[in-house]
Amino acid sequence: MAIKEALRPGGRSARVQESIHSAVRDLLEEQDRATVTVPQIAARAGVTPSTIYRRWGDLSALLADVALARMRPDSEPANTGNLRCDVRAWAEQYLDEMSSEPGRNMMRDVQSSATPGYCVSIIGGQLQTILDRYPGEPNPGVDRLINLVVAPTVFRILFSAAALEVEELHRLIEIAFSQ
Amino acid sequence: MAIKEALRPGGRSARVQESIHSAVRDLLEEQDRATVTVPQIAARAGVTPSTIYRRWGDLSALLADVALARMRPDSEPANTGNLRCDVRAWAEQYLDEMSSEPGRNMMRDVQSSATPGYCVSIIGGQLQTILDRYPGEPNPGVDRLINLVVAPTVFRILFSAAALEVEELHRLIEIAFSQ
Repeated sequence: MAIKEALRPGGRSARVQESIHSAVRDLLEEQDRATVTVPQIAARAGVTPSTIYRRWGDLSALLADVALARMRPDSEPANTGNLRCDVRAWAEQYLDEMSSEPGRNMMRDVQSSATPGYCVSIIGGQLQTILDRYPGEPNPGVDRLINLVVAPTVFRILFSAAALEVEELHRLIEIAFSQ
Repeated sequence: MAIKEALRPGGRSARVQESIHSAVRDLLEEQDRATVTVPQIAARAGVTPSTIYRRWGDLSALLADVALARMRPDSEPANTGNLRCDVRAWAEQYLDEMSSEPGRNMMRDVQSSATPGYCVSIIGGQLQTILDRYPGEPNPGVDRLINLVVAPTVFRILFSAAALEVEELHRLIEIAFSQ
């Protein structure tokens, strides 16, 4: 994330990144993801493969970055004026996105990338944004929300026949908030 | 699991399975896992590839099965005479096994196999064995233990820089047991 956030919008670095992301998106529409290679992406984006390796380390990290950029909401998490409702809204959207095909692919890419903590830092940032809106109220903290709400959401998608039901998700949020 | 549990020990089917498992273990020692193929395993085990496809469906399911057979404790979960202590002992061992290299590989194989629920049914069975030892005592139930203890254990291994600390694991077990 450090790299991405340091980009000046419209700067040379941002333009290179956008052309690489766009090359990946195009190739993923044209062919199976298992057959996409770094040299192919580089050729399409008009850069050298080493530009890609230098910036992302490996193909999985690049694919994960593209998937994350696609998934990342353009706006801040919904602000309902109520802490639990904000967490619920965020968690419902997360469950929705992660159970989709691009969401599952993203989780697979992130795992095999060199930076599996990548995803957690984005999630943590979004949850912290919500918690920071209610400075006076007791809250479970980001780690507890990740362990008790995010982890079961992801685990059930990856390892179980069916994703969590929304009612179960709400119960888990209540557990996270309870003493 | 149905297939495996229906095997008569020493029967023809069990011998075929053992020779296939053993071919996989040998090949994984000799070469990179990404290069192992079904025809190779079949040749080494002295069976046809279709025997493997019929029984496991795909390579990932077979790799997952071999990994699970390796990981599955030969004995029942430890019986300490105390419900929480049994759960703790099981969870500590699970954390330990899953954070190992074979554990991570297994989780990857299971995800890309046709039967990702495979792992959860084994875990659920082990936890149920523990709960059944204490019929009179209130317990959180298998699903709650999976959501609140197993899920964070796995999530942290797959997506975070560091696995759960044992103290955190114990806290999660307390949360699962608390009303």
